[in-house]
Amino acid sequence: MRTVKVELAERSYPIFIGSNLLADKDLISRHLPQHRAAIVTDSVVAPLYLDAFAGALNDAGVEVIRMVIPAGEQHKDWQTLGSVFDSLIAHRCERKTALIALGGGVIGDLTGFAAATYLRGVPFIQIPTTLLAQVDSSVGGKTAVNHPRGKNLIGAFYQPLAVIADTATLATLPQREIGAGLAEVIKYGLIRDPAFFSWLEANIDALTRRDDDALGYAIQRSCENKAEVVAADEREETGIRAQLNLGHTFGHAIEVGTGYGSWLHGEAVAAGMVIAARVSRHMGLMGDDEVTRIVTLLKRAHLPVVAPDLGVDHYLDLMGLDKKVEGGKIRFILLRAIGSAFITAEVPQDAIAAALVESAHHG
Amino acid sequence: MRTVKVELAERSYPIFIGSNLLADKDLISRHLPQHRAAIVTDSVVAPLYLDAFAGALNDAGVEVIRMVIPAGEQHKDWQTLGSVFDSLIAHRCERKTALIALGGGVIGDLTGFAAATYLRGVPFIQIPTTLLAQVDSSVGGKTAVNHPRGKNLIGAFYQPLAVIADTATLATLPQREIGAGLAEVIKYGLIRDPAFFSWLEANIDALTRRDDDALGYAIQRSCENKAEVVAADEREETGIRAQLNLGHTFGHAIEVGTGYGSWLHGEAVAAGMVIAARVSRHMGLMGDDEVTRIVTLLKRAHLPVVAPDLGVDHYLDLMGLDKKVEGGKIRFILLRAIGSAFITAEVPQDAIAAALVESAHHG
Repeated sequence: MRTVKVELAERSYPIFIGSNLLADKDLISRHLPQHRAAIVTDSVVAPLYLDAFAGALNDAGVEVIRMVIPAGEQHKDWQTLGSVFDSLIAHRCERKTALIALGGGVIGDLTGFAAATYLRGVPFIQIPTTLLAQVDSSVGGKTAVNHPRGKNLIGAFYQPLAVIADTATLATLPQREIGAGLAEVIKYGLIRDPAFFSWLEANIDALTRRDDDALGYAIQRSCENKAEVVAADEREETGIRAQLNLGHTFGHAIEVGTGYGSWLHGEAVAAGMVIAARVSRHMGLMGDDEVTRIVTLLKRAHLPVVAPDLGVDHYLDLMGLDKKVEGGKIRFILLRAIGSAFITAEVPQDAIAAALVESAHHG
Repeated sequence: MRTVKVELAERSYPIFIGSNLLADKDLISRHLPQHRAAIVTDSVVAPLYLDAFAGALNDAGVEVIRMVIPAGEQHKDWQTLGSVFDSLIAHRCERKTALIALGGGVIGDLTGFAAATYLRGVPFIQIPTTLLAQVDSSVGGKTAVNHPRGKNLIGAFYQPLAVIADTATLATLPQREIGAGLAEVIKYGLIRDPAFFSWLEANIDALTRRDDDALGYAIQRSCENKAEVVAADEREETGIRAQLNLGHTFGHAIEVGTGYGSWLHGEAVAAGMVIAARVSRHMGLMGDDEVTRIVTLLKRAHLPVVAPDLGVDHYLDLMGLDKKVEGGKIRFILLRAIGSAFITAEVPQDAIAAALVESAHHG
């Protein structure tokens, strides 16, 4: 078992990474402040893991409340959140009753926000079952639900007591979701870890065929990178944490512009990172060869690198609603090189337009 | 102008207390991180103060977005909160656009929760316009909305950048709401400040006739007491902050049992404090004379001291859903004396039943 520590003073917590951790009843139950817990999961994950996991908790003497919500990003909404509260109240869950998110990013984000706000905050444990959630969304305390006008517009920063990433759950993941997770893995290499980017170039085939050792290392290194960034800027105040959003401003526009659910988040981020790399190249920050390395690695991870052709104006409009807007100006995460991202609001409109047109037409 | 500081490390903030502070454009605008702000107020307060206040902000060069929600506790709900988010998004409010709550406790709680969760947290300023909000709900960072099954079940701890208590706004308050605010003022004397309780006994008539000096001192002393408690236990973790809930467990039961809105919160707390005092007396903690002093002061503040006769079983059922429940046991705030509260889960059922029966039949 690998362990990564997220250092946030009194809100510090461990991430455990390994195979078959879901069956380890003591690992999980020792983080529970009460012999009662509510598991929130979705209609896809429940038939795969809920019985076994709830059984392990029962064996540890924990009474389990089960909540199964419909699967899919379109259910990460106000209405589903309301139904979780109704259920927590109907079961008389208390301030010490932990909420356990068992599932992907949607489950983690929605359950985390419910935990942040039910009775003004109850204990929370993340059990991410997708690669994307294990390397990104379960770590760092961002929780939220979507609004019809934009993703993650309503949420909170709320840290879990522990994150348990069971790599055995990745075996049942559709191949497309392995790719979506690898987009965020590659992002860490791009923004701050050139050695990891090179390691990924050497090991991308092992990762796409789900080699357990390779996945374990990729998850660990991703979590270490994310933990360092989050420790430096927990609430996205200094601009350091914003670097984690490389490709996300464009990616969100793709997700919203095509309607939630048709592109996976990681897929949209992959195409968005290509756009960001090309904006950087148009501004003379990076060479063609580096853009090619990025495009090549993403393609080898079976990720889309061609963006949907929504038109430049529609893209800009979609990005105007983004959370990363300051004083009417959009702040972009760009690259000085592979392994070195920075944040800037000084981006010529024509560099953005050129990158958007180029990315909508070829990979 | 009186100033009280709430000491919470990097989340510390000032409370300004004085007459006509709403017209002081610089006092407010210097707390805004951006020359744009959204004021949330209700249909009762808006015609009284919104134009003048928004005008003062305009004079300070601040663009103002106005949101007027229906007045009343029954609108402190999930649906109204959703409409505030819709409006914030429609106006493209950003991470640095402050939310200003202009109104009573309902406006402060709901706007504060919106500020805590819109884009995972935006700047927040409290401008309480009722006595209850000035002495209690605007200070300490508790924000929430109600659920049909209970009050404040969904919320967050979120501190404002500043609280501005303009005593001139109390002139338009219905007399019943002056009383409701005085219930919380009296509470501070009861739980931790016997000298203040004695001062209240000497000055209660000046307070009910809205003497500005008396009100200013009562607000200041209340805020100082609350600030000290909140600084010691911001998130209600050690039991210190829970003392602020004296009378509230019974009070919530009264509010829920009679349907939100028929009793004012402060009125329910007043009757609840009498019940708590009688439980304490039945347990041999306090004498009859002290209960009499409490009942007398509350009556002189024109507050109800007779609880509605809901039946003991219904009361207990209503309290079972309360947030202050731990491991199935209800924790009560009781009194050792006037000025000395404590928290305990060891309360004989018959002491509670006796106090409930007694309080439902006489003051």
